[in-house]
Amino acid sequence: MAATVTFMSDYGLDDEFVGVCHGVLAREAPGARVIDLTHGIPRHDVRAGALALLRALPYTPPGVHLAVVDPGVGGPRRGVALRCVEDDRLLVGPDNGLLVPAAERFGGVAEGVDLATSPWRLQPTSATFHGRDVFAPVAGRLATGASLAQAGRQLDPASLVRLELPRPRREGATLVAHPVAFDRFGNALLDAGEPDLSHRPGTAVSVAGRPAVVARTFGDADPGALLLYVDSSGALALAVNQGSARDQLRLTLDDEIRIS
Amino acid sequence: MAATVTFMSDYGLDDEFVGVCHGVLAREAPGARVIDLTHGIPRHDVRAGALALLRALPYTPPGVHLAVVDPGVGGPRRGVALRCVEDDRLLVGPDNGLLVPAAERFGGVAEGVDLATSPWRLQPTSATFHGRDVFAPVAGRLATGASLAQAGRQLDPASLVRLELPRPRREGATLVAHPVAFDRFGNALLDAGEPDLSHRPGTAVSVAGRPAVVARTFGDADPGALLLYVDSSGALALAVNQGSARDQLRLTLDDEIRIS
Amino acid sequence: MAATVTFMSDYGLDDEFVGVCHGVLAREAPGARVIDLTHGIPRHDVRAGALALLRALPYTPPGVHLAVVDPGVGGPRRGVALRCVEDDRLLVGPDNGLLVPAAERFGGVAEGVDLATSPWRLQPTSATFHGRDVFAPVAGRLATGASLAQAGRQLDPASLVRLELPRPRREGATLVAHPVAFDRFGNALLDAGEPDLSHRPGTAVSVAGRPAVVARTFGDADPGALLLYVDSSGALALAVNQGSARDQLRLTLDDEIRIS
Repeated sequence: MAATVTFMSDYGLDDEFVGVCHGVLAREAPGARVIDLTHGIPRHDVRAGALALLRALPYTPPGVHLAVVDPGVGGPRRGVALRCVEDDRLLVGPDNGLLVPAAERFGGVAEGVDLATSPWRLQPTSATFHGRDVFAPVAGRLATGASLAQAGRQLDPASLVRLELPRPRREGATLVAHPVAFDRFGNALLDAGEPDLSHRPGTAVSVAGRPAVVARTFGDADPGALLLYVDSSGALALAVNQGSARDQLRLTLDDEIRIS
Repeated sequence: MAATVTFMSDYGLDDEFVGVCHGVLAREAPGARVIDLTHGIPRHDVRAGALALLRALPYTPPGVHLAVVDPGVGGPRRGVALRCVEDDRLLVGPDNGLLVPAAERFGGVAEGVDLATSPWRLQPTSATFHGRDVFAPVAGRLATGASLAQAGRQLDPASLVRLELPRPRREGATLVAHPVAFDRFGNALLDAGEPDLSHRPGTAVSVAGRPAVVARTFGDADPGALLLYVDSSGALALAVNQGSARDQLRLTLDDEIRIS
Repeated sequence: MAATVTFMSDYGLDDEFVGVCHGVLAREAPGARVIDLTHGIPRHDVRAGALALLRALPYTPPGVHLAVVDPGVGGPRRGVALRCVEDDRLLVGPDNGLLVPAAERFGGVAEGVDLATSPWRLQPTSATFHGRDVFAPVAGRLATGASLAQAGRQLDPASLVRLELPRPRREGATLVAHPVAFDRFGNALLDAGEPDLSHRPGTAVSVAGRPAVVARTFGDADPGALLLYVDSSGALALAVNQGSARDQLRLTLDDEIRIS
């Protein structure tokens, strides 16, 4: 069975960056199947990338998971490759918090290496395109079955950079949650999940001081009405039927939203 | 030979939705070749999706054709899988009219199943992401050669939802046609086809009361001039050389356009 | 080993054009691996396409390289397939200058054919979609190992259309260069390359009369500051840290930029 490489980035598809990384992967691992998760992560938004990776990986085959959202490329941040405890999943990308939530989803980091001196880097290695010159060749070699220990110098998993993520909290009957991502329709994903929701579909609630309804699908609310629902990833989310919750509530990331 | 799965949707590429469906397909059918037809169908525009699928499938290998433009997801609309009379092509998606024009292009529906109780659905099945939880796993299983009859409960093909499509008509020497889709350049595809055009290239005609020329390619008209041509799909189409027919004629879908 | 086909175009991903070409490739060459380099070349910008192809191909496996940026489709311009001197790389696309810089990167054109009468064209051949009807079927057949000589009528490589590209020049201590492409962040790629830069990182220089710094990465300059750096393709480039050089300098393609 061919190995699977998944690939996520903030490169967008307007330029040839993604295609060039596919070229490098094909040279290193001609038999691998490469799946693009998305290249539409907002530029340099490490947290959005980390959360998208976390949502996506449980649905992909185990394999090598290449992720590049890398505002610090060429600076002192490390490039790393990590092996998860479960499934032998391998994560490759910058050490800026992007990979850790996904690694924790699969039991944590069993083993990791720093790619600074990886023998698999392309030479010359550019200062600005480590997706092509460092991460894709390492991901490709790992997809052929090469050993993680040969990819670089061993690192202490406790030294990996972790993101500060907001956490929901309860204040009596009120749930205080925060939007951690918006999709292209203005739906807001919250940091709270299905277990934090104590109301059944159809219940009227107050969200940020406005009337809303707990719903199962968009069609359960009137057009223009605000609804609180369990997103397909299991997270609580806010939407406006045929509209944008982000716009209607003037939300920005990490705002406190009081639900009662 | 590996089975082919084609995949079309209105999910866009900004989020991980398409990538997650690819992950599910790869888990279910590791050996299949997956071809993205487009994920840029305007959101919830079932008719645009149906017409794009109809235009694309004659050029793809036979196989499993997954299509998701699904404004009614989570509501009472059915999810279905259909076998066409010709080529054993299998169509998977919502029963909202999206699949029927393509099925008719391949001889009609020989057999269909309702996926409401399909044993192949992912569990838990979300209310809002049937692409991932219902349609991709069914498409993947079918691509491995599993039997359509096992995918769900048999349905009567006559019960499938059909789209109302406008039809062109003749009023004496005048052809009355309607734009059914616009591409990103503002070219308008009409519901009329090559056989409805009785004029040779170079002929001056009147389109919506304005002068236009029957042309073979854009270069046959002056910049800014309106031209009527046979599109690569065999449909009549309106364009403005180096401009937008949609903007110049202020067209919206289903407008009556008189050509004489 | 499966043959590789790379595919670049200005079709965008909103419509089914790219997917349809993939369908044709899959029919002609079921075993080939297809890599999308990008479909975001600005519409009809042959030079931008030629430069993106030139930057990308050294990173892809050798194989068949399909490229379509084709404002003259349906007119007198030729469709061609070319074999490069090195690597047996095959280039397929319109004869408008798009392919020649990449061919020269691989030793020049060893052999070429005109596809006007190619037996591999789809019938009927549309006037407006040669990507589907001419170039994809030819690329697919070549990927199966069919002979270039059978693809069409032999042509004289000296007759191929070449682009006029600006060239940098020195005026004493001043380098005069020109932007030849912009990426989506407003970074400007210049026609000059690393060997034209005589200053070390950290040096203050004057670019178009404004202060700038020679930098290795964006992080070496203050936010909003102009920097001159060697791009990952080896070209000199201008950027504004966390901003747009294109906007700040009001650049357009081929402007003269004086660096001293």
